[in-house]
Amino acid sequence: MTYCVALCLKDGLVMLADTRTNAGVDNIATFSKMHLYAIPDERFMALMTSGNLAVSQAVVNLLHEGIDTGGRVENLYTANSMFRAAQLVGEAVRRVYVNDGPTLEAQSVKFEVSLLLGGQIKGRSMRLFQIYAAGNFIEATPDTPFLQIGETKYGKPILDRALAYDTDPRDGVKLVLVSMDSTLRSNLTVGMPIDLLVYHRDELRPAVTRRIGDDDPYFRMIRDSWSQALRDAYRAIPRAEWLG
Amino acid sequence: MTYCVALCLKDGLVMLADTRTNAGVDNIATFSKMHLYAIPDERFMALMTSGNLAVSQAVVNLLHEGIDTGGRVENLYTANSMFRAAQLVGEAVRRVYVNDGPTLEAQSVKFEVSLLLGGQIKGRSMRLFQIYAAGNFIEATPDTPFLQIGETKYGKPILDRALAYDTDPRDGVKLVLVSMDSTLRSNLTVGMPIDLLVYHRDELRPAVTRRIGDDDPYFRMIRDSWSQALRDAYRAIPRAEWLG
Repeated sequence: MTYCVALCLKDGLVMLADTRTNAGVDNIATFSKMHLYAIPDERFMALMTSGNLAVSQAVVNLLHEGIDTGGRVENLYTANSMFRAAQLVGEAVRRVYVNDGPTLEAQSVKFEVSLLLGGQIKGRSMRLFQIYAAGNFIEATPDTPFLQIGETKYGKPILDRALAYDTDPRDGVKLVLVSMDSTLRSNLTVGMPIDLLVYHRDELRPAVTRRIGDDDPYFRMIRDSWSQALRDAYRAIPRAEWLG
Repeated sequence: MTYCVALCLKDGLVMLADTRTNAGVDNIATFSKMHLYAIPDERFMALMTSGNLAVSQAVVNLLHEGIDTGGRVENLYTANSMFRAAQLVGEAVRRVYVNDGPTLEAQSVKFEVSLLLGGQIKGRSMRLFQIYAAGNFIEATPDTPFLQIGETKYGKPILDRALAYDTDPRDGVKLVLVSMDSTLRSNLTVGMPIDLLVYHRDELRPAVTRRIGDDDPYFRMIRDSWSQALRDAYRAIPRAEWLG
């Protein structure tokens, strides 16, 4: 399993991925699920993956090699818009499906992959997409400024309640860390360390890329202080009068 | 879908169930999922159900009619311990499975049912059980004083972080309402109104049974103030220094 979450806010992108992969609970490993594509001052993109690891890696490799689209080889460095970049990711997913899908199906393994692509190209809008296993995709909007893939449910309530499009990305970092911590507590197949990215709109290079381990003092502080804050918050709510 | 949650605390039980049932998103209805079995000053039990509605109702009806266990008809009013009561619920599930399971399976409908049974019989311990579709069951303990059935994930983080065995039941009410609200926000097939039960240890009768609707002032206050409290709480956490 996996948990990846991305925020597309007024002032920037915040993206966070865990690193655990597992084939059963007795076969776990650490793989980065965040891939960066950067030409400083020209473009910056980040891709996060979830699903079957072989499928995810095949998609990432195909994007790296480039996709032949009728005599022209395109990749995330040649795409002239974020929309085109999302299309290429979708096309890579479809090509892996054509190649691997039938055998996976014959062996009753589901073709599972889901990706988040965020970024910006010079002179264009900053955008965030979620690409499905069928290669189609949706985009985050100010109404719903976050997208999640993998084990999404435990970490969703905090985002539903506290996140808004105009949330400062530095506060967004707190929210995705809380969201990740809620998920880590409940699903053993989501695991540390975690990879964080912060991108400020129009900067065309990442502001922060950081691998956060169990011993990271800021993440430890978030874990501890958030639980305490929740306990304080619910105690501050008055008890129902009808409880006597 | 359904969301039911029950707390087995030092001083009592708190149980909460939604009332929505659905067969597809275009066929929803309201059914109580909480069933009470009470002989004042002698015993008090509450049973909450999730899963296939026909299966749940069959189990409840069978428990009402009584289960013939070798010449003797037993029900939740005759059981002489909570353990025996949980066994009877499990036995009812198995009998429904024997009767309905093969046809459901032939029509590719999963035999799904899961129940929470909490209560106390005079002179015995207050206990809380979760009964599975196979009729087997587990019990809540001071280490894990809550059990959930149905759509459990959205409402779990708040319980993980804030609930403890020695939480006052009146505070437990706040936590299950927050947990329910998180679930209601994310899953349309969990719906209002909701049924709340509070039982104080050794009282052998319910302290509070209350149906809470959309217009309930206390629930509205919880919904509003909790989101505000979370926003305040995360803002109070310092931003990471390494964010600049």
